[in-house]
Amino acid sequence: MDYQAPERDAQFIMHDLFQVESVWSEIPQLQDISPDVVNAVLAEAGRLASEVMLPVNQSGDAEGCRWKDGEVTTPAGFKEAFKQMADGGWLSLCGNPEFGGQGMPKSLGCLIEEMFWAANSSLFLYGSLSVGASLCIDAHGTEAQKRTYLEKLYSGQWTGAMALTESHAGTDLGIMRTKAEYQADGSYAITGSKIFITSGEHDLAENIVHLTLARLPDAPAGSRGISLFIVPKFLPNADGSLGPRNGVSSGSIEHKMGIRGSATSVIHYDTAKGFLLGAEHQGLAAMFTMMNYERLSVGLQGLGATELAYQQSARYARERIQGRSPTGPQNPDKAADTLLVHPDVRRMLLTQRAYAEACRALGFYTGMQLDRAKFAADAQAAKIGELLTPVVKAFLTDRGVECALLGQQVFGGHGYVQEWGMEQIVRDARIGQIYEGTNGVQALDLVGRKVMRDGGQTVVELIAEMRQTPVKSNWQSQFDAACDRLAATTESIVRRGQKDPALPGAVSVDYLDMMGNTLCAWMLGRMAAVAPADDFGAAKIATADYFFQRILPKTEGLAAAIEADSDVVMKLPEAAF
Amino acid sequence: MDYQAPERDAQFIMHDLFQVESVWSEIPQLQDISPDVVNAVLAEAGRLASEVMLPVNQSGDAEGCRWKDGEVTTPAGFKEAFKQMADGGWLSLCGNPEFGGQGMPKSLGCLIEEMFWAANSSLFLYGSLSVGASLCIDAHGTEAQKRTYLEKLYSGQWTGAMALTESHAGTDLGIMRTKAEYQADGSYAITGSKIFITSGEHDLAENIVHLTLARLPDAPAGSRGISLFIVPKFLPNADGSLGPRNGVSSGSIEHKMGIRGSATSVIHYDTAKGFLLGAEHQGLAAMFTMMNYERLSVGLQGLGATELAYQQSARYARERIQGRSPTGPQNPDKAADTLLVHPDVRRMLLTQRAYAEACRALGFYTGMQLDRAKFAADAQAAKIGELLTPVVKAFLTDRGVECALLGQQVFGGHGYVQEWGMEQIVRDARIGQIYEGTNGVQALDLVGRKVMRDGGQTVVELIAEMRQTPVKSNWQSQFDAACDRLAATTESIVRRGQKDPALPGAVSVDYLDMMGNTLCAWMLGRMAAVAPADDFGAAKIATADYFFQRILPKTEGLAAAIEADSDVVMKLPEAAF
Repeated sequence: MDYQAPERDAQFIMHDLFQVESVWSEIPQLQDISPDVVNAVLAEAGRLASEVMLPVNQSGDAEGCRWKDGEVTTPAGFKEAFKQMADGGWLSLCGNPEFGGQGMPKSLGCLIEEMFWAANSSLFLYGSLSVGASLCIDAHGTEAQKRTYLEKLYSGQWTGAMALTESHAGTDLGIMRTKAEYQADGSYAITGSKIFITSGEHDLAENIVHLTLARLPDAPAGSRGISLFIVPKFLPNADGSLGPRNGVSSGSIEHKMGIRGSATSVIHYDTAKGFLLGAEHQGLAAMFTMMNYERLSVGLQGLGATELAYQQSARYARERIQGRSPTGPQNPDKAADTLLVHPDVRRMLLTQRAYAEACRALGFYTGMQLDRAKFAADAQAAKIGELLTPVVKAFLTDRGVECALLGQQVFGGHGYVQEWGMEQIVRDARIGQIYEGTNGVQALDLVGRKVMRDGGQTVVELIAEMRQTPVKSNWQSQFDAACDRLAATTESIVRRGQKDPALPGAVSVDYLDMMGNTLCAWMLGRMAAVAPADDFGAAKIATADYFFQRILPKTEGLAAAIEADSDVVMKLPEAAF
Repeated sequence: MDYQAPERDAQFIMHDLFQVESVWSEIPQLQDISPDVVNAVLAEAGRLASEVMLPVNQSGDAEGCRWKDGEVTTPAGFKEAFKQMADGGWLSLCGNPEFGGQGMPKSLGCLIEEMFWAANSSLFLYGSLSVGASLCIDAHGTEAQKRTYLEKLYSGQWTGAMALTESHAGTDLGIMRTKAEYQADGSYAITGSKIFITSGEHDLAENIVHLTLARLPDAPAGSRGISLFIVPKFLPNADGSLGPRNGVSSGSIEHKMGIRGSATSVIHYDTAKGFLLGAEHQGLAAMFTMMNYERLSVGLQGLGATELAYQQSARYARERIQGRSPTGPQNPDKAADTLLVHPDVRRMLLTQRAYAEACRALGFYTGMQLDRAKFAADAQAAKIGELLTPVVKAFLTDRGVECALLGQQVFGGHGYVQEWGMEQIVRDARIGQIYEGTNGVQALDLVGRKVMRDGGQTVVELIAEMRQTPVKSNWQSQFDAACDRLAATTESIVRRGQKDPALPGAVSVDYLDMMGNTLCAWMLGRMAAVAPADDFGAAKIATADYFFQRILPKTEGLAAAIEADSDVVMKLPEAAF
């Protein structure tokens, strides 16, 4: 397997599509980031992905993680590769400069995370959870907590984990049972069990910082009675060195469909010492700082799968000879033409390619909103960022699985055997639709919470921005129609949803799909509009043409399906299922 | 894992929807099959599936097949379960009564194959290839060949395999290299290597009958120079007993994404003795007898996955409590409501359910066409059967993967771990889209061959039949519109395809999807029209309502996408991929 980080495409998105230098030049903390620096950072990240992370991807899947007596051994080579990622400063890229972070913009981070996810999802998961944990501690921790944990997390000396799920409480965190009891020293004693804890135990770092949700004795019932605690595997001494082993341990690891190099633990808390992070009973809101980061990041995992699958299948299609072109032999001196002469093979490749390019731009755009919110206190950008987070998480991971399946399909029978690695991409990508809130939960967050709570106003504002930025002129009227369709569907859902509480959940997945595809058209149409007059630009235009003609029309069918009442899903009695 | 064969639904399809007794009563060979016999056969097949085949499904996946020195060991329990399937007469069900077959109609066979595929795809594969091989020998063999092979294949004493693919020649069989040389005794010496040979070596039967494609010395180039040979693992003596070991052997088995209980071999032919089956150079046409059977059967494999995933996820959704209904608590005395209160969970279940019911009826309908063609020499039915074979193969396996993914999604994180078996259904179902001709090849067969060669005439005739059989009255106008849409799209493809040779391949997958969904609407609409006035009937109507409102509208988007030129997929230069 081979992977070439999409550097040229990333540069095009930053410099030509969004002209980030002019955006960043107005933000004091970012104004010194030159195009040269950015391009060097991208190149170095790409090198790490291709040369360090990718080589242990297939072997990590084959070997998997091993659990023995509470200790987890990661696959051969993971420790060395993780150390290179950490030593290269990749876990501190967007971190707080006060505590050793590099303070780079999230948008740039999105392009880089994609590369790491593509090259080795299992390995980067250990990093992604560290970044998320450090973000959460930075946002909600005391000065002392930040001093104790951030630098260690940024350097990869310690790693992070998020502990939410219990065996009976997945999506529904309100019914969790893990409890926290006040201790005389101001800490808390945590008791209970969590499941599905990614990076909950492993051998890549000397300490693991579990951000753990638990319930205080006086907590109100439900999700408003949950507090967040820092529960380190080893208790830090005052000087930052490792103290005694804490009562938090791995009971076993899961045997999973994919991401087998990532250890997923059952974690037992046996009166483990925990430190309150943020305010009592406000734990879920604090945890959302981490979750929102992870959701965006997991979306980029889906994008990484799309790009990886595309690169493999495009190469295979260029090299494999099989059958003849419908217009007559193209390589008459060979036994057959390449797979690329077959229109349906091209359809499969163009779908992957269009989604990779569109989703990359969409992820970057979302990162830009978070940058504006963070660095320029731009409330409107924060709102758009919040709206788009579930879209990026769900739409990009849905496309990740779709495109991994398409890439696998291009290989025919060779895609089904383990040797070529295509089936691993499918298995690895599949988790993206499930963890960090299933994609159904993301869709409900989008429609049930974000669209319904402001009567669709934020979507209306986003559509207004979409209409103001020109797409390539030959697609403008079709794009305007797609915007009209999205606006009308949004209005219809808000109107009907006010009377029918089941409606948002009944149509949410189709709506998210429609919005995602409309946003992709926007990104591709804009990229085609600013494409340079060379081969690179011509390919951008051809890819946009494909999307506008072959994929965007499918939103017509989605709009029609969304017009159905909730009754059509709700009326079948429970006993009939 | 648990599986309840859909007996009631199968009975409804036979007796109420298609009233097969009145069809069969006009066919001498079938007129004695009473409803009681049919229902008893269904019940017995269901029992075998649930009680014998299912219990070794997950264990078979975990254990897999082992290869050592050319011998393959199947997972524990496979031998005993296969023997029960064979001893029960299930491999001879539709076989030729002259040689020990039971002469039952294919349509009934479709309902039964679905059950076996659902319960254990890996195990039934060994059976499916035996049935296909016996069909091919029955159609093209000499009297002596039929006498030698059929009874043994029907009884499961011997099994079948089909050997087409070579490492450089998958879809493109014309470039295969395995050669056959004339021998003085009238047999042929076969030399070469094949890959991806399902059931090519195993320990379930005393002999394996390889139907092998090879090229004679004087053969014309391409696919018109391929001959078909019977190459048994052990050469039969004149009395039918096993003679010497033949020069055909397994070089290795594949490590696959799924169907791990099914052994997929590299097969080496070392001047193996082969016997010509059918005429010289006509091998591909003869092999198509087997391939067409396997294509229909593989479609039913997809249906089996859909039904299995539906049953597991419906049960999980009934039992798992998580979250609250959008209309307020339904089980206020419990910590949470069941998953079934969530509209999007219902969407995922109803999609699986609607496709299971529609595809079952569509498979049965297709089987009926083959029955009419075989027993009543009905040329029109033969044409419709040919048209529908690629649709059933591709559409049902596409839905199999889609529905397995939906079923897995209902389980959340529990769907991603191996324990619950949901991820195995996905991995097992995935092969259906790839083998026996990828689904892209099926779509090209449908559009490039079957639609284009008669100018869409057969589709027009099928649509005429669709219009003549009433669907439930409230959906009649929407169904008529869907028929109009399919007719107009067919006409458009034929018209444009005559000038543009790349067009059929460019739109074929979307067209097959559109046709499949329109046929599903037909089946569900008809079932709703004849549904009894009880809970069973009410569920049929609710399922049809869901499909007409939430899924059928998506064909509008497909129709719009199909209007794109082939240029949109063909113009990107090869070097740009």
